[in-house]
Amino acid sequence: MRIIESRIERLRRIIRRKKINALLVTNIRNVRYLTGFTGSSAFALITATKALFFTDFRYTEQAGYEVTHFERVTEKGNRVRLIRNLVKEMAIGRLGFEASASYYFYEELHKAGISLAPQSGLVEKMRMIKDSVEVEKIMEAIRRAEDAFIAVKPAIRPGVAERAIGLRLESELKKRGCARAAFDIIIASGRHSSMPHAGQTEKKIERGDFVIIDWGGEADGYYSDMTRTVLMAGPEMSRKKRIYDIVNTAREKAIREAQAGMKSSEVDRAARQHISAAGYGEFFGHGTGHGIGLDVHENPRISWAGRETLADGMVFSVEPGIYVPGFGGVRIEDLVLMQGGKARTLTQLNRKLEIINGLYPNKGGRI
Amino acid sequence: MRIIESRIERLRRIIRRKKINALLVTNIRNVRYLTGFTGSSAFALITATKALFFTDFRYTEQAGYEVTHFERVTEKGNRVRLIRNLVKEMAIGRLGFEASASYYFYEELHKAGISLAPQSGLVEKMRMIKDSVEVEKIMEAIRRAEDAFIAVKPAIRPGVAERAIGLRLESELKKRGCARAAFDIIIASGRHSSMPHAGQTEKKIERGDFVIIDWGGEADGYYSDMTRTVLMAGPEMSRKKRIYDIVNTAREKAIREAQAGMKSSEVDRAARQHISAAGYGEFFGHGTGHGIGLDVHENPRISWAGRETLADGMVFSVEPGIYVPGFGGVRIEDLVLMQGGKARTLTQLNRKLEIINGLYPNKGGRI
Repeated sequence: MRIIESRIERLRRIIRRKKINALLVTNIRNVRYLTGFTGSSAFALITATKALFFTDFRYTEQAGYEVTHFERVTEKGNRVRLIRNLVKEMAIGRLGFEASASYYFYEELHKAGISLAPQSGLVEKMRMIKDSVEVEKIMEAIRRAEDAFIAVKPAIRPGVAERAIGLRLESELKKRGCARAAFDIIIASGRHSSMPHAGQTEKKIERGDFVIIDWGGEADGYYSDMTRTVLMAGPEMSRKKRIYDIVNTAREKAIREAQAGMKSSEVDRAARQHISAAGYGEFFGHGTGHGIGLDVHENPRISWAGRETLADGMVFSVEPGIYVPGFGGVRIEDLVLMQGGKARTLTQLNRKLEIINGLYPNKGGRI
Repeated sequence: MRIIESRIERLRRIIRRKKINALLVTNIRNVRYLTGFTGSSAFALITATKALFFTDFRYTEQAGYEVTHFERVTEKGNRVRLIRNLVKEMAIGRLGFEASASYYFYEELHKAGISLAPQSGLVEKMRMIKDSVEVEKIMEAIRRAEDAFIAVKPAIRPGVAERAIGLRLESELKKRGCARAAFDIIIASGRHSSMPHAGQTEKKIERGDFVIIDWGGEADGYYSDMTRTVLMAGPEMSRKKRIYDIVNTAREKAIREAQAGMKSSEVDRAARQHISAAGYGEFFGHGTGHGIGLDVHENPRISWAGRETLADGMVFSVEPGIYVPGFGGVRIEDLVLMQGGKARTLTQLNRKLEIINGLYPNKGGRI
């Protein structure tokens, strides 16, 4: 695979610039990105001339199929001792290691007498810029998620339990080829909708409820993530419509203003300013979005603290929300791809407010 | 809740013994264990007299319901700065932190001038010994998993794709109340069965295949984990039966020999010796088991490197296997509870070899 070769070469250039002799890659998503290995336990060691891949007995055979550009080693016994021996054998002076590893692991390596240089986010930074194959996988994860939602949509109505909708949505994701849902699906209705990260309960949807649906698909290890909020007909409709419109416009503005060269925090500011100007600033307490790829949450961070510079190839979510405790909440989330200097929206599902007339067509709540 | 109070008190005693002034708890499962919080982002700070809980805006409302024995703080802005200010305000001399936290986080705290004392596995050690409420939750997670398997069982036959079985099994787990499957279910048939951690593919089960099913349920945050292997009628049955019997006897021996006061590695040795004596030692490359609870994999480690001393209240898996590349593999996994000094098997499903006659009753492979 040319992709794997080019990733190894790019990492080697970074390693040279950082003046370390080798990088120990322990983050399992980084391992997958660099090696192609899809299992859950492995690490890699990359030097100027060597690329070594380590996994244990459980994955030896699978790695044989998946990992083609690395010298493969089956790990046995103590990992720290294995690394210490390699560092000696290969005469590695300063070993770079990923600062995302645990302090405990660092301490063990240190005690083993290895000269260490912590490195922050080297591979993560490469992963921020997606190539066309990665974008295609994310788009497939989006298609699966959107198709699944369309199948479940008619069930989102008064009388149906949050959990019943969540179950059905997850099963529709799987039917479309997702190995798993991207994360525990959120179905938050009525009073639950003001808790941005509520789960799913046996609560049935009622008239007047906002229903936040936050879900994501998967395709070949890449994830999608999106949110829609629908409204059940009921009391106080004009205030609810207004809140929805504020969130939706905030989302639109943030996407329109995103430009290559801009700090990621500026996208957050665009959404936040609109919500604050409308008087709901205190009810939007989370960041506006996050990068996505092999992890559901990765860089860039689209928040007040975001410091990445937007660039073509980045894929991230834009998901402002307003959550009024005791009243209800709205979140609308799209995924965008930076392309030609601008943000192109990848998610397609309708974002106009849908109001569902609760005629309780099915009292049992079965879907 | 008395349980929460008693956990805080026990942790305080440990903190005193360790001669630190406070422990910063960042592992999210440890946070759940100590506080009752079920969300995905939070941390806690426990001193001799104070118990503080921190989460962000997304979880403030939920924490209000769940976290009753801690002073609750909504985290805003930079976490490291917040901790530094607290350490000053509360005049904490040496702050204990969990060594499972990232090296990066340690470095940030260190740079902020905080005097730090890494602590390994303090809360994890408490979690190793389950109380009766925890055991009941694990047993419920087992019941859900076993019932789900029984519902899916008739579909495990030639002509059905691994993935179809996995989908159905996951959906049956959810129907029984599991918030999620404990992990990505393994359905590994025929040549896949010799890869201990294969996933699920579109491969259809064939005559003569071993089919390894490794799955787990969930109940109120606690997990179960079990494995069964069934055999499709076909060629080389006597060798296959022999391999199955060796694994099953190894499992039985390990459970029978487990005793309070013994090192966890001795349970591993019991299984391993049996398999080695039968001539298959090189084909059993993984550890014999692992503790389970709020995490699917926790201490004690039942492997050649396991150093925990078995004690009443521990719950762990016993799951020897034999994997012959190109021929097939067998794993049988039960969960046991240490009680009255001995291992009591919690999982109930049949472990006798079941041979399924492949009459292809359904050519389409639908289930």
